[in-house]
Amino acid sequence: MSVLEASRGVIPCDRVIRNVKYLDVFHCKWRTGDVAWFDGIIVGLEPGLNAREEIDGSSKWLVPGFIDAHVHVESSLMTPDHFQNSVLPKGTTTAICDPHELANVMGVDGLRYFLDASLGLNLDLRIMLSSCVPATQFETNGGGEIEAQDLIQWIGHPQVLGLAEVMNVPGVLNGDPKLYEKLKAFAHKSIDGHCPLLRGQELSAYAAAGISSCHESSQFEEASEKLTKGISVWIREGSVAKDLETLVPLIDLSTSTSLGFCTDDRNPLDIAQEGHLDYLIRMAIKRGVRPELAYRIASWSVARHYGLDRAHAPAHRRRGAIAPGWLADLVLLDDADCCSIVEVYKNGKPSRECKTSATHRLFKNSIQAVVPDALDLQGPEGRVHVIGVHEGKIITTKHVMNADEPGVAKFSVLERYGKGSKPQNAYAFGFGESFQGAIASSVGHDSHNLAVVGTTTGDQKIALQALIQSGGGFCVVQNGSVIAHLPLPMGGLMSTESPEKITQSLRQLRQASRQVGCSLAEPFL
Amino acid sequence: MSVLEASRGVIPCDRVIRNVKYLDVFHCKWRTGDVAWFDGIIVGLEPGLNAREEIDGSSKWLVPGFIDAHVHVESSLMTPDHFQNSVLPKGTTTAICDPHELANVMGVDGLRYFLDASLGLNLDLRIMLSSCVPATQFETNGGGEIEAQDLIQWIGHPQVLGLAEVMNVPGVLNGDPKLYEKLKAFAHKSIDGHCPLLRGQELSAYAAAGISSCHESSQFEEASEKLTKGISVWIREGSVAKDLETLVPLIDLSTSTSLGFCTDDRNPLDIAQEGHLDYLIRMAIKRGVRPELAYRIASWSVARHYGLDRAHAPAHRRRGAIAPGWLADLVLLDDADCCSIVEVYKNGKPSRECKTSATHRLFKNSIQAVVPDALDLQGPEGRVHVIGVHEGKIITTKHVMNADEPGVAKFSVLERYGKGSKPQNAYAFGFGESFQGAIASSVGHDSHNLAVVGTTTGDQKIALQALIQSGGGFCVVQNGSVIAHLPLPMGGLMSTESPEKITQSLRQLRQASRQVGCSLAEPFL
Repeated sequence: MSVLEASRGVIPCDRVIRNVKYLDVFHCKWRTGDVAWFDGIIVGLEPGLNAREEIDGSSKWLVPGFIDAHVHVESSLMTPDHFQNSVLPKGTTTAICDPHELANVMGVDGLRYFLDASLGLNLDLRIMLSSCVPATQFETNGGGEIEAQDLIQWIGHPQVLGLAEVMNVPGVLNGDPKLYEKLKAFAHKSIDGHCPLLRGQELSAYAAAGISSCHESSQFEEASEKLTKGISVWIREGSVAKDLETLVPLIDLSTSTSLGFCTDDRNPLDIAQEGHLDYLIRMAIKRGVRPELAYRIASWSVARHYGLDRAHAPAHRRRGAIAPGWLADLVLLDDADCCSIVEVYKNGKPSRECKTSATHRLFKNSIQAVVPDALDLQGPEGRVHVIGVHEGKIITTKHVMNADEPGVAKFSVLERYGKGSKPQNAYAFGFGESFQGAIASSVGHDSHNLAVVGTTTGDQKIALQALIQSGGGFCVVQNGSVIAHLPLPMGGLMSTESPEKITQSLRQLRQASRQVGCSLAEPFL
Repeated sequence: MSVLEASRGVIPCDRVIRNVKYLDVFHCKWRTGDVAWFDGIIVGLEPGLNAREEIDGSSKWLVPGFIDAHVHVESSLMTPDHFQNSVLPKGTTTAICDPHELANVMGVDGLRYFLDASLGLNLDLRIMLSSCVPATQFETNGGGEIEAQDLIQWIGHPQVLGLAEVMNVPGVLNGDPKLYEKLKAFAHKSIDGHCPLLRGQELSAYAAAGISSCHESSQFEEASEKLTKGISVWIREGSVAKDLETLVPLIDLSTSTSLGFCTDDRNPLDIAQEGHLDYLIRMAIKRGVRPELAYRIASWSVARHYGLDRAHAPAHRRRGAIAPGWLADLVLLDDADCCSIVEVYKNGKPSRECKTSATHRLFKNSIQAVVPDALDLQGPEGRVHVIGVHEGKIITTKHVMNADEPGVAKFSVLERYGKGSKPQNAYAFGFGESFQGAIASSVGHDSHNLAVVGTTTGDQKIALQALIQSGGGFCVVQNGSVIAHLPLPMGGLMSTESPEKITQSLRQLRQASRQVGCSLAEPFL
């Protein structure tokens, strides 16, 4: 009854922002008013209510908290608590995540970790249960295959919204029985898609399977066709895949309630330097999108897609708009065009009061590899096949070169799940002609085995050994010594450190990779 | 898997409409394509699929089936099966109903009747559980008070969407504990409102209670404020309350996904002569609304509000749009501007194949009144208080006149629930100076007691007796004989006859009322 009493002025509200321009998402218009809330719930929009804390909102803008429509938290290298502490001050109050990477590495234990962690956060972390583990039939992962039965146990979990990105497009089109078992089990929940470049009747068949969103559109016409077929389009701007500029022309009043923004894979340096969803909003406005539309898309539209605009058990709170009865997830701006944030309120509390810690439980070291004594990284002599690596591109090329040519390095992948597979050895090109040393990583989509590139077997072995000891991570070795190292003990994917320490370590790693002559600007992320 | 096979062209579809202009609700645009479906599910929008029945759609339009956002089926005087058979051919494929009238008369049995009936229909009849029975504390009804516990038992019923119009506005604002018990129990479902003219901080408090729609806006500014406060606005055009013309200016691309159309109370003659939702659409377009917007509001927008655009257990079908995977609830038009209907498909079947019958179970005669021997309808002599009744208005006026003045008739209300209350007697004016006879009805919101107006006690008694024998209804008596009679044995509210027979009886009643000198064009509806 206290919310009623506060809304009737019988008791003071917790906070009121007076005389602020707030976004009415329903009309897609700015209005001026006094936005007041109590116990995390907005109770009034007009002058007349008092509050324990009064905030002057004149010449400021207030918008609903941002909702990331699709994100892999693992790509931030942060545990969920640190991820929250990192993105909440940037306006992201809800994130719809797919713990696909941790699930690939740890199986159902990886999902369970995220489900448990989500319950202890202030950030509203919603979980889509990973549908495609392993990602392909050819992958060797640690978690084994996650079956429909494994997922069904969590269908009623309060943070679970449905089934995560169905990337097995051939499986959908060819009627893979195990996949359809999952689609059937989640038919009354949300099912996210992942269907880059799928068009025409194949896209119709994919939609008819009940899949209702996709974050993988890189072409305007492709995205527009998805909308027509009832598939909501999440406009992605990650650290690698960047679709925003191409898809901005899709945004108008007609389409806006079927669009959303998502970060998918965004690394900690980009989050720290450019921002999170605030960056996407800023870019969209810069490219001509009306601010009211950009903020609507960043909040209400995604909330509606996932039913978060309806009261949800157990929290019984609507989210995605500034209106009485809705959750006080709010972003206060001193410039709406630049998305310049003054304060973020989550459940009515300023973000600085929302910090959570210790969502990392102790994981057993998930790296079960042993550096073999007879690690044969030499390979054949003379003319050899070489993998070409290129600055800023995911795609590699194939070449035939001399093994001892300048710039050709040794490249090895060591299976990390203790399955006893032999190391996969090859040559690689593109790390720089003066490269001398070794660089190793335990992050490699989607199996996340241990990869090392180096110029001497000794340095490579030391790098692998360092990663095995730290349960995964990134490291650089020079002349037999580890000169930079970011341990990622959470499944070999996530650090337990704070966002600040992670970005500091990443900068040290970048510096160290330059020190060993690596010419790639960013060899790790 | 058959839907997949049909969408891949492995097996033929059930039907395809070729070369038709169909509404893409997501872009709010007409597109041209071949809309194909199988087993009630749309599987394709492009040429290339074959079907057992091929329909030429050239120079035709296809729109999603209409959704009535708020309707009392009882006002049609039809049982749910006849209501379906009446409105399906007019394009209404889903109706969100509140069985408030039957609940007032029969209590939880009235709700149970609608819940049971809804499971046997082709029309998608969704139920909002009546929140305010009796409607006011001053009403005498037959069902007694319906408590939160009575409603909670049906919260998981597949056709139940939530709590019906919360008309007890003072109860919301003053924190009535019994009402809040209901609001709390339904907080994670939809809660419909009913708050005519409520504005400002009181409207905010009402919204903060979790109420998310209202069909009672009669002013533009009032409706606009409701939208801003997160309350979806259902634009009503019933038989009595008509708000469409006033609210048409509210409709634009920004607001369209938070608006809907509803009929609320629409009588069988209006349904037969003007139409159902098709009439509202036609009127809106005539008043300047772009057809794409009108059809979007009539389907997808309401579906989204109630979560019907998401797959729903147990049917697992999305509704409200023409897209693969969505239910084939379709209206084929030969003129989109006039909403001129060629065919309606419900679950993919033409409406003529969707007829249902016998949703009426045998009700015990719910009229327990006895015409008292000492029925004193004479009242006082000389100057008396008289109720003025006026053509086409709900509002009555008060007068003081001579009891024997021409045009003054006797008016009585007989409590019908066997509670032994004395008849309420009065005088009435406005039925015509040459009125001679009696007219009686068992339909009178919200208690539905027996009302009779007449010039002689004898004719009045005969009229009451006729209604008691038929379990309720409408009748006209002249010179001691019943000259027209529509029995409404279903709770005294609904006929078991077909829509055609009901309208025929209503026309006979109208004729008979003229025969007894009644000057009101429509004394019953």
